[in-house]
Amino acid sequence: MTVNLPLPQKDQLKPVKGFQMGIAQAGIKKANRKDLLVMTLVPGSQVAGVFTLNRFCAAPVQVCREHLAQDGRNGEIRALLVNTGNANAGTGEQGMQHALETCDVLAKELQIHPEQILPFSTGVILEPLPIGKIVSALPAAVANLDEDHWLDAAEAIMTTDTQPKASSITVQTPSGPVVITGICKGAGMIHPNMATMLGFIATDAGFSPGLLGDLTREIANLSFNAITIDGDTSTNDSFIVMATGQSEVHIASIKDPHYAIVRDALIALARKLAQMIVRDGEGATKFITIEVLGGKTPEECHLVAKAVAHSPLVKTAFFASDPNLGRILAAIGYAGIADLDVNHVQMWLGDVWVAKDGGRNPDYQEADGQRVMKEAEITIKIDLGRGLASQTMWTCDLSHEYVSINADYRS
Amino acid sequence: MTVNLPLPQKDQLKPVKGFQMGIAQAGIKKANRKDLLVMTLVPGSQVAGVFTLNRFCAAPVQVCREHLAQDGRNGEIRALLVNTGNANAGTGEQGMQHALETCDVLAKELQIHPEQILPFSTGVILEPLPIGKIVSALPAAVANLDEDHWLDAAEAIMTTDTQPKASSITVQTPSGPVVITGICKGAGMIHPNMATMLGFIATDAGFSPGLLGDLTREIANLSFNAITIDGDTSTNDSFIVMATGQSEVHIASIKDPHYAIVRDALIALARKLAQMIVRDGEGATKFITIEVLGGKTPEECHLVAKAVAHSPLVKTAFFASDPNLGRILAAIGYAGIADLDVNHVQMWLGDVWVAKDGGRNPDYQEADGQRVMKEAEITIKIDLGRGLASQTMWTCDLSHEYVSINADYRS
Repeated sequence: MTVNLPLPQKDQLKPVKGFQMGIAQAGIKKANRKDLLVMTLVPGSQVAGVFTLNRFCAAPVQVCREHLAQDGRNGEIRALLVNTGNANAGTGEQGMQHALETCDVLAKELQIHPEQILPFSTGVILEPLPIGKIVSALPAAVANLDEDHWLDAAEAIMTTDTQPKASSITVQTPSGPVVITGICKGAGMIHPNMATMLGFIATDAGFSPGLLGDLTREIANLSFNAITIDGDTSTNDSFIVMATGQSEVHIASIKDPHYAIVRDALIALARKLAQMIVRDGEGATKFITIEVLGGKTPEECHLVAKAVAHSPLVKTAFFASDPNLGRILAAIGYAGIADLDVNHVQMWLGDVWVAKDGGRNPDYQEADGQRVMKEAEITIKIDLGRGLASQTMWTCDLSHEYVSINADYRS
Repeated sequence: MTVNLPLPQKDQLKPVKGFQMGIAQAGIKKANRKDLLVMTLVPGSQVAGVFTLNRFCAAPVQVCREHLAQDGRNGEIRALLVNTGNANAGTGEQGMQHALETCDVLAKELQIHPEQILPFSTGVILEPLPIGKIVSALPAAVANLDEDHWLDAAEAIMTTDTQPKASSITVQTPSGPVVITGICKGAGMIHPNMATMLGFIATDAGFSPGLLGDLTREIANLSFNAITIDGDTSTNDSFIVMATGQSEVHIASIKDPHYAIVRDALIALARKLAQMIVRDGEGATKFITIEVLGGKTPEECHLVAKAVAHSPLVKTAFFASDPNLGRILAAIGYAGIADLDVNHVQMWLGDVWVAKDGGRNPDYQEADGQRVMKEAEITIKIDLGRGLASQTMWTCDLSHEYVSINADYRS
């Protein structure tokens, strides 16, 4: 079940000059399925990433961190490698050797240094990576490299996603157009073990060294870090932004007028991709936007949004289309703002003002709340009444199907 | 559905000398049901409490806090008043007036000061307290006061609990026996709006002024604060410990050898009561104990236990009797210990060593994990391998019935 999840069309996914994708079938877990993706970048590209904070992070995540930290010593990042079917997590020292070995083999194929490669894995955990199958299939993936393979790439990184997730925009700037295209995968942390969130965005804008790291963290906080299905953080979550610099737009500093234009477009695309994961959330029947405003800091707004988004009581009420506003108020109350004066809190369900000054709005009619709750896309707006900061988060409801999906025995 | 929840027997619930309970039917929400409870204490009793940290706390919680803080100025606490059927939460200034008015009326009945009374409410929120019904029924509750009404009291505070929860122990000390009896209610934060956790424990031991506050916080942390059903903190949660001093045992300081004996017995009883709430958890089919040891501090052990206990993925795996250890490891990894070295982490399911040094124990057989997962009571033991602190938490699984209970429309 999905909530208004668009199926990407190949001709809508614009190539990003200087960025190629090659796909192969390595048979890692199942035969006859795209499960290996190689991505390459022209020299001079900038790459930045954010990764899971889970201490049980996978071997490839550790390798990515090291290779990104070494950027500049051994040359910039030039290629990425993704396999599905096996997460190479909980695999110890052997897992590290395997992740490094895939980089070695791909480096020889591409005639670059192994440190210029970022590896990614997603799939079942606690099982050794079938390194032989990957090594055998790498030449086919490299031979398949093409700027126009976005849809194939989106399919190659799927695990339990019900459909590929990809999107593309072209933004006009004073110096000409910039293309931004991205793919992602994820649908909760899922059967059979845990599904990872992977996101890859490429643009032909150019960035001077050092700019992309902070920008990528900002984008992640406003997109992939602002969604939740079940609150569980996977061992392999990764989000990468790549800039090839092959357009006419080159950004030297954050004061460059192009910076804001490209930044906003990157955020918009990342949000769209992140929301696709929620729309494909396990058992999701509702797409819920939680807007928290009037906070003293973005952090406290995030606390409130997260408490509401994670509450099983709130999520089951949405599944039932029950305007049970007490559950939302209770979640606001326990979110962790120690000095919150609830008498200043307002809450809206869609366009209906349900909680006024911390209590039930005297004009609120349950039928109005009920009307909003029956919609497939619902916005909860919460005004904390204590400042100017705001934060938005997206989540889905908690349904019988979520329990079914996650309680099914791994098979 | 309950998991090994014992039905309390009246003759097992020992009276606590100096402590009386009176029950009445006020018809607050439904007719012909015990919904009003008055409890009285002899002069010289000590009373302490801990309350919800939810900022949307109910009016009676605010009154309790004020009256306990005033203790000593207007005389000690002498009575408690509990109504079910209405939580008097989200009711604004009128709710405060109602809570104070119930204290005024009961004070006149008992010929004490209103400030010597602690009021409690549980039930539907955002609706005005039917003050008239409560005031009318108070004389009947007072006329019913008796030391032997523990089972009736346990029934009177029930909301969606499937059965009354009560327990009693007598502990021998060098100066004679001490009786401890308690009741509680709660089954998750539930339909129709939210159910509150209420716990009341009385003992005939005597405590010098000032001792009981810290002890009550310690007891709460090791019992009611160590359980979770769905992670939602209600607006009305309260836990009260009362000591009448009517036995031969009087405790003047924490160095008194009786202190440790009575303290341990109070903790044991509070844990038993708290576990009853988990055993009656909404949709619960498994009773799960999470022991975290080898931590640097109790706080970090609590973080890990809470992350495992709150993970919907872990909880659905238990519902499915699926020994999906990756989900537990992932929850340990995102619990928030930034410098956790996962290579030192061990995990056991019951008596089966499943995770060794952060990975799968080579000797682990899935059939062994499967055997443990099929039991109704399961212990997860996690050794963080970095210190001597430990913490234990209790929770239940996440079943289809939980979603059904919480997704049903309020009726």
